[in-house]
Amino acid sequence: MYRESIKVLDCTIRDGGLVNKHKFTHEFVKRSYEGVSKAGVDYFEIGYINSPNLFSTSEYGPWKFCAQADIRKVTDGVPNGAKISVMADVGRVEMDAMPFAHESAFHMVRVASYIKGVDKAIALANRFHEMGYETCINLMALSRDQGPELDEAFAQVEKESQAKVIYLVDSFGSMYQEDIEKLVARARQHIKTKELGFHGHNNQQLAYSNTIEAIIHGVNYLDATIYGMGRAAGNCTLELLLGFLKNPKFDIRPVLDLIANDYLELRKTMEWGYIIPHMIAGQLNQHPQDALDLRKTDERDAYRAFYERLVSSGMD
Amino acid sequence: MYRESIKVLDCTIRDGGLVNKHKFTHEFVKRSYEGVSKAGVDYFEIGYINSPNLFSTSEYGPWKFCAQADIRKVTDGVPNGAKISVMADVGRVEMDAMPFAHESAFHMVRVASYIKGVDKAIALANRFHEMGYETCINLMALSRDQGPELDEAFAQVEKESQAKVIYLVDSFGSMYQEDIEKLVARARQHIKTKELGFHGHNNQQLAYSNTIEAIIHGVNYLDATIYGMGRAAGNCTLELLLGFLKNPKFDIRPVLDLIANDYLELRKTMEWGYIIPHMIAGQLNQHPQDALDLRKTDERDAYRAFYERLVSSGMD
Repeated sequence: MYRESIKVLDCTIRDGGLVNKHKFTHEFVKRSYEGVSKAGVDYFEIGYINSPNLFSTSEYGPWKFCAQADIRKVTDGVPNGAKISVMADVGRVEMDAMPFAHESAFHMVRVASYIKGVDKAIALANRFHEMGYETCINLMALSRDQGPELDEAFAQVEKESQAKVIYLVDSFGSMYQEDIEKLVARARQHIKTKELGFHGHNNQQLAYSNTIEAIIHGVNYLDATIYGMGRAAGNCTLELLLGFLKNPKFDIRPVLDLIANDYLELRKTMEWGYIIPHMIAGQLNQHPQDALDLRKTDERDAYRAFYERLVSSGMD
Repeated sequence: MYRESIKVLDCTIRDGGLVNKHKFTHEFVKRSYEGVSKAGVDYFEIGYINSPNLFSTSEYGPWKFCAQADIRKVTDGVPNGAKISVMADVGRVEMDAMPFAHESAFHMVRVASYIKGVDKAIALANRFHEMGYETCINLMALSRDQGPELDEAFAQVEKESQAKVIYLVDSFGSMYQEDIEKLVARARQHIKTKELGFHGHNNQQLAYSNTIEAIIHGVNYLDATIYGMGRAAGNCTLELLLGFLKNPKFDIRPVLDLIANDYLELRKTMEWGYIIPHMIAGQLNQHPQDALDLRKTDERDAYRAFYERLVSSGMD
């Protein structure tokens, strides 16, 4: 597949940081940034811009806050570096502390939002837009919010937001390729002037195939992570996606090096991937938290009991 | 997805046996058979029917030969057991030693064949058909044999074979969902009176999504394995497939038990799944043997060198 308008965003450190409270060392993040940049990836999402007044900076690592100095430590001296993206949650950003884009260490802000919070997400994204940033709105958990509220949200982001890209997010890793086709078509009924993006989760080993499906239906902004690293089952793997995209600017080899040199080792102490409780949660269209909690207990592999519990809770 | 004509075949022991020379104990296979049968799966492929005169019975386990007595040890006393399938390779079966179906421990024979060997495969499958067995022909490596020989093979199996099902096999795990759609349509131009089946490999995490794609386009015979166990990257996982199929006869829970009690443990000593050299081989549409060989050496994680080598070999 070759389409010049396709942009790839690596969100390993941001989404993967949910596994280790964003405690990656600067050296680790720099190596990832260098490799991802060499691979020709367009954006590198380095973390969240949470206010340090809201979360403990000793409990969480630097990529939960993304101080300008921390980002520059990673990006300084890297030639042809990917653009830096950060994620913003409504109500957690200290706007007064944010620099204008032309003096900032990051280029793009993605505001993550459930459908019900879309008003506030639009407002926040618009503020960043006015400060000169590229902006996106990531609409989460779309496998659950399938009622008329979804059409309203699509219409509203089209009409009221200045965002460049609206991301469709399969937060629970529960969507199938037919769902993606329908979701993109539904979004396109309302969103005519913006790009669409897709962010999948791999609970059912469908993050990559769903990303391909999104591409087929005209989605141009694609999220992926190195070796699929991300919360719970993780994400579409960057190495698979780059292998699919035939644009000669992409090169899979630096990503292979990162996996061999950094991510294989990381996987020994951090858990993500095809893990049965996450598969079950995806199949049953549930939030990953129950499965994540289970994995911390002695019942981590008591699959049948977990399945029975989730099926029952779905009937409440 | 609910379609009564869909049949699921578990080939864990047969395909997974390629990882351990079919050295599963009778007790292990019996537990798998019981679980798969409880799960409502239609067929249980237990191994190959190779002649013991061609391979060493000390080097290989019982499921490379599938003696009647070995099968009965597994199936005896299991209520509502799945039908037993075996795989036959052309030139490796001692036909004189084969019982008629009505006195046999297996019900179905699947003859595996590359496109170039389809004449012999048809002849072998027809002999089993005459002996009263259900028969299938599994056409392998279809991502490579895409020329006019493929149409000829489809036309020939339709015209000359008595097989009930023609399986389309993505041996290298290199096909995408669009390839599946096209392949099924192409097969259907020729194969009008038989069922189609699909057997995928998971090199690119696409075995499950490709199986869904096959279902969407009318394929009714579906291969899967417990926890995806199979050669190299393995196969479509049975637990994912059963979660997708809404026929109430299927029950995922016995499969979850098998994974928790048997297959997690097995995975500690046997390798299959999303492993980068297998991913690379799938992406480059190559036979898995090079990657399997690499994984036995000290270079097992030298991904870049392996990638470069495979890319170069493709240019010879």
